[in-house]
Parts: sequence; structure tokens; C-alpha cells
Amino acid sequence: MKQILLAKRPKGMPGQDDFTFQETEVPSIGEGEVLVKTLYLSVDPYMRGRMVDAKSYVEPYKLNEVISGGVVGEVAESQFSGLEKGDIVVGMLGWQEYSAVQGKHVRKIDPEVAPVTTSLGVLGMPGLTAYFGLLDIGEPKEGETVVVSGAAGAVGSIVGQIAKIKGARVVGIAGSDEKISYLKEELGFDAAINYKTSDNLKKELAEVCPDGVDVYFENVGGEISDAVFYHLNKFARVPVCGAISAYNKEERDIGPRIQTTLIKSSALMKGFVVGDYSSRFGEASKELGKWVREGKLKYEETIQEGFENIPDAFLGLFKGENIGKQLVKVAEPEGK
Amino acid sequence: MKQILLAKRPKGMPGQDDFTFQETEVPSIGEGEVLVKTLYLSVDPYMRGRMVDAKSYVEPYKLNEVISGGVVGEVAESQFSGLEKGDIVVGMLGWQEYSAVQGKHVRKIDPEVAPVTTSLGVLGMPGLTAYFGLLDIGEPKEGETVVVSGAAGAVGSIVGQIAKIKGARVVGIAGSDEKISYLKEELGFDAAINYKTSDNLKKELAEVCPDGVDVYFENVGGEISDAVFYHLNKFARVPVCGAISAYNKEERDIGPRIQTTLIKSSALMKGFVVGDYSSRFGEASKELGKWVREGKLKYEETIQEGFENIPDAFLGLFKGENIGKQLVKVAEPEGK
Repeated sequence: MKQILLAKRPKGMPGQDDFTFQETEVPSIGEGEVLVKTLYLSVDPYMRGRMVDAKSYVEPYKLNEVISGGVVGEVAESQFSGLEKGDIVVGMLGWQEYSAVQGKHVRKIDPEVAPVTTSLGVLGMPGLTAYFGLLDIGEPKEGETVVVSGAAGAVGSIVGQIAKIKGARVVGIAGSDEKISYLKEELGFDAAINYKTSDNLKKELAEVCPDGVDVYFENVGGEISDAVFYHLNKFARVPVCGAISAYNKEERDIGPRIQTTLIKSSALMKGFVVGDYSSRFGEASKELGKWVREGKLKYEETIQEGFENIPDAFLGLFKGENIGKQLVKVAEPEGK
Repeated sequence: MKQILLAKRPKGMPGQDDFTFQETEVPSIGEGEVLVKTLYLSVDPYMRGRMVDAKSYVEPYKLNEVISGGVVGEVAESQFSGLEKGDIVVGMLGWQEYSAVQGKHVRKIDPEVAPVTTSLGVLGMPGLTAYFGLLDIGEPKEGETVVVSGAAGAVGSIVGQIAKIKGARVVGIAGSDEKISYLKEELGFDAAINYKTSDNLKKELAEVCPDGVDVYFENVGGEISDAVFYHLNKFARVPVCGAISAYNKEERDIGPRIQTTLIKSSALMKGFVVGDYSSRFGEASKELGKWVREGKLKYEETIQEGFENIPDAFLGLFKGENIGKQLVKVAEPEGK
């Protein structure tokens, strides 16, 4: 079977040569373990942070070891009483075709309830991230203006829709006309700005946010966010989920310091990672599932095919190639 | 009588020529008004912000009008039933020797309870600012590490002491050896760093904060704060009260963007102004007064004498000349 190791720690924008493909034996399993055949792999911007050897909220990937992330797979063999061959599971597994794992470290999913890929997207980590960041930190109120950057991405697209469900006016910032149409026409955003073709983002924001910005859901950082910060209303809230523009910078990420902005508007900014809310995942999953069933929460997936294209799909995240959740399809399930 | 007007909007560090001294008639009062003779005037860093013509949390000062701020004065004449000649009052009044004001817009203070100047310091706006910023946003817990910048100033010195009352370990950052001694020997700070003589503030902070930083009370901004941000613990809180290092910058205040720092530590940053908490001033004043009476909360005042020295005292704030509250004494009370 094939697996992908971290060959070196990327400097700046990662490239293919930061990854090593390797052939190895399919592992054998012991008592309490299952062998999982990888069906879909999730690639996510936060993985860039784990490629750096620095203190952060998750352990850095080790050099010359298999990279890991969210995986949907099929149980190929089981020595765990709760799972049998053919079951579909989700968990944090390696970038490899098969993984041996403790049965209790994966979660069985029911393909009848929703497409299995949703457990890596709207009903998985990105959905939970959007839910808690927006509702717990952003706390949008009816009639308020919510701006979200990275708006067509896996997290941003859900943030905007939850904000709509809560009665807010929603403005998205994204990087292509296709994404802008998607946000406005498919997801019902009230306005959306293509930052790549905008001459003056600060001014365009003023036009589409005539009442200022009450919540800014931060996915991108950099100059886009600098522009949004001009428009924060008194007591604005800024959930800080990501800063994708900074992840591949070799130099420090320099810009206007935020302190005076926060003082002027008595604004709150709070970083978070989804794991901060692990005790409340049940509540959120129930709510997200309900909204999906009711048709209030739509989702899109960009699926690249083939194990060999995993690095490419990952690198595409930083070029803004995906709409919604970026996945890689590795294999078809074999069934029970 | 004399008064001081804003002559022009300062560019960069303000100077004497930004102020105009003017002689005028002592105003006469109407029904419901009192004539207040200025005894003590407060000069505060936030006033720099009001000298700029920009949207902020307070109205900018108008050009060629009298500058205003906190004043302790004596009622010289009264046509307001709640006040009589000789009463001592505090309020937002002009930089002038006498002010005519609605009696309901000043608050009578009892000189028997505490020195009247405390109503501009520990029992006034700076004390309330420290109280709400630290307790409501910072929420220090017993055994946690609280770092405060501008630590020897009117707000910072109270922040550190309240943090000690709450059982935290307190580290101050200030700009002279005299201030450092004051913080450690008079106020009982656990450690204090003179940023002006520090070769490597980031490293010195690591030494005096072996368990990291749980609360950073922000008064100064700039590179001092950049250094503190390296040490934020998971779920750290940063009340943003001031950024005095930025107030006189002619160019934009540029530095490392904060987003990735906040994500890594799931940290919270919140700007505030004391007015956000006006409905709770009563509760805080009671608590602050109790701590002062119990000797748990000490305060220092730097008092410059003479009306003509008001601009000088104000400018001194940006040179770090004051320990504790900077006041200007304008006149002695005449008594009833």
C-alpha cells in the first residue's frame, strides 16, 4: 500500500517535494483494533501549521512520518467488538491506503443518514468549527451584520448560512466570481465581494455594510481583515478561526496593530480551535444535522480523485481552488 | 479667569503650541446651575485621542474650544438645590479656572471619606477602568500570572494590586528603575521589568513568567506587547485598555498581526472603555473604597502645581514622567 510522509518542513508555500510517497505492507491488526481502508481524505489549511516545528495547539507532524488528518474509511478487518467488516467509520488517520487503529478511536457513521463525506465537512470538523466560532464567540443577533472571509470555503460557507438562520445580514468575502455567485445565488448571502478584483476593499465593504460590522468571522487574516476592521461596530465580535494568508509567509506577518481598533469599538477578538468545544460536539452535531435535513444548510464538496493527488489537493487550498470542503477520493467501498 | 483651548490638532507628539491660553470673564450661572472653582485637574492619555478628528468612543475636542476632562472643584455659587457654596464636587469640566455647569452634571464628594483627589484616581475613572478591565475581561484566577504594562501609571498600578487581592502572581512592565522599585517594594508586585533597560524583553518575560501569561492587561501597545504575546497561555485574556505607544505616531502603527497568536492560544482580546460599565460604577466604587480603607489598595499621585502647567503635565504622560495618577493643582479651596 501507499503512504505519504512529511519529507521536510516547508519554507513558505509548500511544494510536492515536501512530501515523500512510500510503498509499505498493509499493517496487521491486534486485539481491539480495526483495519480501515481509506475512502476519503480531508485536506485542511490547519495542516500547514502542523508541518512547522513550533508550539501550537496541536502537535507538529514528525519528519519522515505519515501525515495524518480526517479520514472516512471502511472497516476491512475487525478485532474490535463494536465494528465489523464493511462498516463506515471516520477518524484521524494517516495519509495512507490502510490504517490499523484502535476501534474506539474511530466513530461509526450511518451512510443512510447523510453522505459519508459530510462527516468530514458540514457534519464534521468544519461544521463544528463554524458552529462554535460563530455562535459561541460571534453571537450574531437578528438584524446584525456578519462578515465572513474565506466565505466559500468549508468553514466559511457554513458560518454564513448559520448566520442567516439566526436572522443576520451576511456578507461574504471570497476570491473568484464563481465563488461570489455561489454565495449569493446558492447560499443566500446578502452580499459578497471578490477581494481579488476589488480596487478598494475598505470602500466596497462600506457600501455593502451600511450599518457597519457586528461580527467578523476571521478565516484569512492579512489585508482583507485589515480592511474589515475599519468597519467594526461598538461591541463587535471577531471569532478568529484561521489566517490562511499568513500560513505560508516566510517573513513575519506584519500589518496594523489591532489595539487601538479594539479600544475604539470595545470589540472582542477571540482565537479558538474546535477542540476547545469537544464537550459540546453532541449538541452541535444534532443541530447541524437538523439544519441539513431541513434544507437550511447546504454544502458543497470539491473532490479530487486518486491517492497520488493528495499533496496537490492540499496545495490547492492555498490557491483558493476549492469551493466548500476539499476532499480526496482514494477508493470505493467494497461493501459487507 | 484663564482657560486653555485646543489651538490645532497635534501631529505626532503634541507640543505647547497645540494649546492656546486665553483670559475671559468668569461665567454667570442660571437656574439649576453651579459655578465650580477648579481645584484639581486630571490629565489622561485618552485625551490624546480626543485631539484627533476621527470617529472614536468619545467626541473629538473641537478646535478653538476649551479642552475638557476630569476636574475636582469647589462650588463657588449655586442655583441648584442639591449643592451649596463650599461643597466639593467632581465632574467632566473644562481646562479653566471656573466652570458654569448644571448641578446634576457634577457629583458631590465627601472630603472626610478620602482625599478629594482620589475621585480622579483610585476612586475615579482610572480605578474603575482597572477594576472592570481586569475583573470583567481579564478574570484572573488564584495562582494565575497577570502581566500589566504601564504598570506604574494611574490604571496599571491599580490593576496589579487588584490582581494581587485576587490571588494572582503579578508582573509589571514600566519605564524607570524608580517605578520598578515602587512596584516591587511599595505595591507588592512579584516581579517588574524596566523595558527601557531590557536587552531582550521576550527573554526577561520568560524568566519572570515561568508558567506563561494568563492575563495581559494592555496599556501601551507596540513592541512591549508584541513581546508579551509570545507568552500567552491557552485561554489567556487580554483586556485592551490603552496603547499609549501608538497615540503619537504619525505613520500607522505597524507590527506583527495578532491572528495566529490568538488561534494558537485560544486567547481572548477585548477593547473597552470605562463607560461601557457605567451601570455598575456603584458596585465597583464600593469595592475599591473598601480596599483602600483596608490598606490593600495603595495609590500614588504626581501633582504638578499651577494652571499654566496643565499642557506640560499632559505632555509628561507620554514621556512616562508620572508615577500613579498625574494631576494638576490649580487652586486651594476657600471653604464654606
